[in-house]
Amino acid sequence: MSITAPTGFRAAGVAAGIKASGAPDLALVVNDGPDRAAAAVFTRNRVEAAPVTWSRQVVADGRVDAVVLNSGGANACTGAQGFQDAHRTAEHAADVLGISAGDVVVCSTGLIGELLPMDALLTGVDAACAALSADGGTDAATAIMTTDTVSKEAVCRADGFVVGGMAKGAGMLAPALATMLVVVTTDAVATPEELSAALHAATRVTFDRVDSDGCMSTNDTVVLLASGASGTTPSREDLAEAVTAVCADLARRLVADAEGAHHDIAVEVRSAATEEDALEVARSVARNNLFKCAVFGNDPNWGRVLAAVGTTSAAFDPGALDVAMNGVEVCVAGGVGADRALVDLTAREVHVTVDLHAGDATATIWTNDLTHDYVHENSAYSS
Amino acid sequence: MSITAPTGFRAAGVAAGIKASGAPDLALVVNDGPDRAAAAVFTRNRVEAAPVTWSRQVVADGRVDAVVLNSGGANACTGAQGFQDAHRTAEHAADVLGISAGDVVVCSTGLIGELLPMDALLTGVDAACAALSADGGTDAATAIMTTDTVSKEAVCRADGFVVGGMAKGAGMLAPALATMLVVVTTDAVATPEELSAALHAATRVTFDRVDSDGCMSTNDTVVLLASGASGTTPSREDLAEAVTAVCADLARRLVADAEGAHHDIAVEVRSAATEEDALEVARSVARNNLFKCAVFGNDPNWGRVLAAVGTTSAAFDPGALDVAMNGVEVCVAGGVGADRALVDLTAREVHVTVDLHAGDATATIWTNDLTHDYVHENSAYSS
Repeated sequence: MSITAPTGFRAAGVAAGIKASGAPDLALVVNDGPDRAAAAVFTRNRVEAAPVTWSRQVVADGRVDAVVLNSGGANACTGAQGFQDAHRTAEHAADVLGISAGDVVVCSTGLIGELLPMDALLTGVDAACAALSADGGTDAATAIMTTDTVSKEAVCRADGFVVGGMAKGAGMLAPALATMLVVVTTDAVATPEELSAALHAATRVTFDRVDSDGCMSTNDTVVLLASGASGTTPSREDLAEAVTAVCADLARRLVADAEGAHHDIAVEVRSAATEEDALEVARSVARNNLFKCAVFGNDPNWGRVLAAVGTTSAAFDPGALDVAMNGVEVCVAGGVGADRALVDLTAREVHVTVDLHAGDATATIWTNDLTHDYVHENSAYSS
Repeated sequence: MSITAPTGFRAAGVAAGIKASGAPDLALVVNDGPDRAAAAVFTRNRVEAAPVTWSRQVVADGRVDAVVLNSGGANACTGAQGFQDAHRTAEHAADVLGISAGDVVVCSTGLIGELLPMDALLTGVDAACAALSADGGTDAATAIMTTDTVSKEAVCRADGFVVGGMAKGAGMLAPALATMLVVVTTDAVATPEELSAALHAATRVTFDRVDSDGCMSTNDTVVLLASGASGTTPSREDLAEAVTAVCADLARRLVADAEGAHHDIAVEVRSAATEEDALEVARSVARNNLFKCAVFGNDPNWGRVLAAVGTTSAAFDPGALDVAMNGVEVCVAGGVGADRALVDLTAREVHVTVDLHAGDATATIWTNDLTHDYVHENSAYSS
C-alpha cells in the first residue's frame, strides 16, 4: 500500500510507452484532502533538471494536490523545451483532475540529455488519472523504477495517523540526496512549515547519509504530502519521528538495491569533535574506491580506511586512530591491531567503525562496495 | 639511463627478498657531487608513512646524499617500530656508504599496516651499495615497481645540463600527489631553494594534476637531487622548465599504466573565472565514477559530465555550459548539441572539454576510466 496507506490518497502506475521495454513508466499520486499541505527537498546539484525547476515553484506556497512521476527519461539538460514539457505535463494532469497546474509537482528519472516523448507521456497521464485507486500505491512504486530490481515502499503507523512512502533509486546514490524520487504521504494534520521541518529533519539523517557512489543526481526530489484525513494533529516531534522512520526504511532499501552492489557498508565514525567532522570522515571512507573494491573482494584492507581518513580536515591525532571491521579491532592507535585474517566480510552487511578519540560526536554513512557488476551496469547505460 | 643520465649519480636495483615473488624490490640512488643540494615534496595525507616522516627531516636542511627506496611494503601505520625501521635503513646505508644518516632519504611502497622484513631489507642495502653503477638507473626504476607493468623513466637534455627521473605508481593515483615514489636528478648547479622552487612549480602542473582514482597515498614522495657536476648554473626558468618536462613525461606514463585502465582521459576546463575553478570542475568530472564507467563502455554519456560540473562551487551559468568529447560538441548551452553517436571513444586517449564561459582560466586533469580490471586488481591486493 505504502503511499496509499494513509487515508486521503489515491495513486496509479501505468505503462505509457516512454520506456522502450514497455514496462510501467508513469505514476500519479493525488491528495484528496481535506488538506493539501506539502513540503519538499530537491537536489543541490546546480545543473538541475527541468522538472526540479518547475516543482520548486509549485511547492513554494506549501500546497501540492498531485505528483506526476515518470521513469524512462530525466528531462535534464533539455533547455527551454524541457521546461515547457514539464509545465505541459502539469497542465495536462491539472486539466484532467480539475485542479490547478500550479499545484502539480512533476518528477522525472532516466537518461540525461534527451527530450521526453510527450505524446506518449500525456496519453499516459490520461490513463493514470483513469486508473487512480485508493490501493494504487504499489502500482505507482513500480512505475518509477529504473535500474531498481525491486520496488521500495514503507509504512509507519503512528498514534492516530499514518505515514507512507515510496522511492526509486539504485544508481547514482549521492552526497546530498541519492538519485531518488521519493513521495511520502501522511493523513496527519500539519502545516506546510511543520511538514518542512519534519522532512528536513528526516532527510538530514537518512537520504543525506546514503552515499552509494559519490555521484549527485540532477533530479533528486523528496516530496511530503499531508491530507489531514485522519483528523489527528501530531506533535512536531511525533510527526518528525514517523517521517524519519519511513525515510530511514526507504533509504536502507536504496542501499540494499544499489546497482551491482554485493555489500552494504555502514561507515560509523565515533568520538569525533563535531558531527561535521564525523560526517566528513565517514564520507571520505565511503567514497574511497580502493576501500570499496577491497570490501568487494572480502579483503579487510584497513590501511585504505586510514589513508581515506588522512585526507580529511577533521580533528584527530593519526597516532590515536582505531579501526574495527565487523567488530575486529584491526587498527589500534594508528598501528597494527588484531590479525586481519580474523575479519569475516562474506556477509552482505559490513560495519566499519573509525574511532577518532577527539570528542563525543558520531555519524554513520551507508555506502556500497565497488564491483564488476557496478562497472558493467554503468558502462552501457545510455547506449 | 634516466636518473643516471645526469653526471654525478650512481644507482642500483636489487632483489632483497621483501617481495614474496623474488622480483627486484630495493633501489639505491647516490649523489656523488660535487654538490648535494636537494628539495622534495611529500604526500599531504595526514596519515603519513614512517619513511615520509623520516625523510621530511632529512630534506629540511637542503642536503641529500642518497635515497633508499623499497617496494614490497609501505611501512605505513606501523607505529614507533616503523619509524625505527626507517631510521635504521638510513643508518645502515650511511654506514656502508661512509656518509651521514641524516642525509639519506628513505621511501617505501606496498601494503599498509605491515612491518618490513628488516633483515632482508638491510642485506639488500648491502647488495645495492655493492652494485652501484653510473648506468644503474634502469635497474633502480625496475626495483621500485609494485603493480606497475612497465618501469617509468624520463630524461631532458637542456642547455649545458641534464635532468633525469624515475617513477613508480599505477594505482592510488591521487589528488595531491599520485601514489608515487619519484626521484629526479640533475647535474645542474642550483641551491636547495632554487631546486625547491623548480620542483614545486613542476609538481603543481604535473603530478598534482593526475587523479587516476581520487585516492591519496600515505607514502607519496618526489625528491630532486642536484650534483652540480655539469658546472652549468641554469636560470631559474630554465631549471624549472627542464624539471617540469621530466615530471610531465613521468606523470603521463603513470596515467598510461594506471591499474586496470583502458582509457587515459584528459578533462580540460576552459574559460573558467579562475584556475582554482577550472581545477575544481576538472577534478569533479575526473572523480565521477559514473562518467568513468561510461568511458570504459565507450559511451559518450555527457549528462554525467554536466551532473559532475553541477556539484562544484565554480562560477558558471548552467545554461551556458558546453561539453565536447573528442572534438564533438555534444552539449551546447547546457542542452543537447551534436548527436552523441558521432563521438568515437574507442581510442585509448579521450579528451573531454568543458567550457564554463566565465573567464580566461584553463586547467587539465588526467584520469582513467573505471573498469572491470581496476575492480579486480584492487579487490584482492592484500590477501
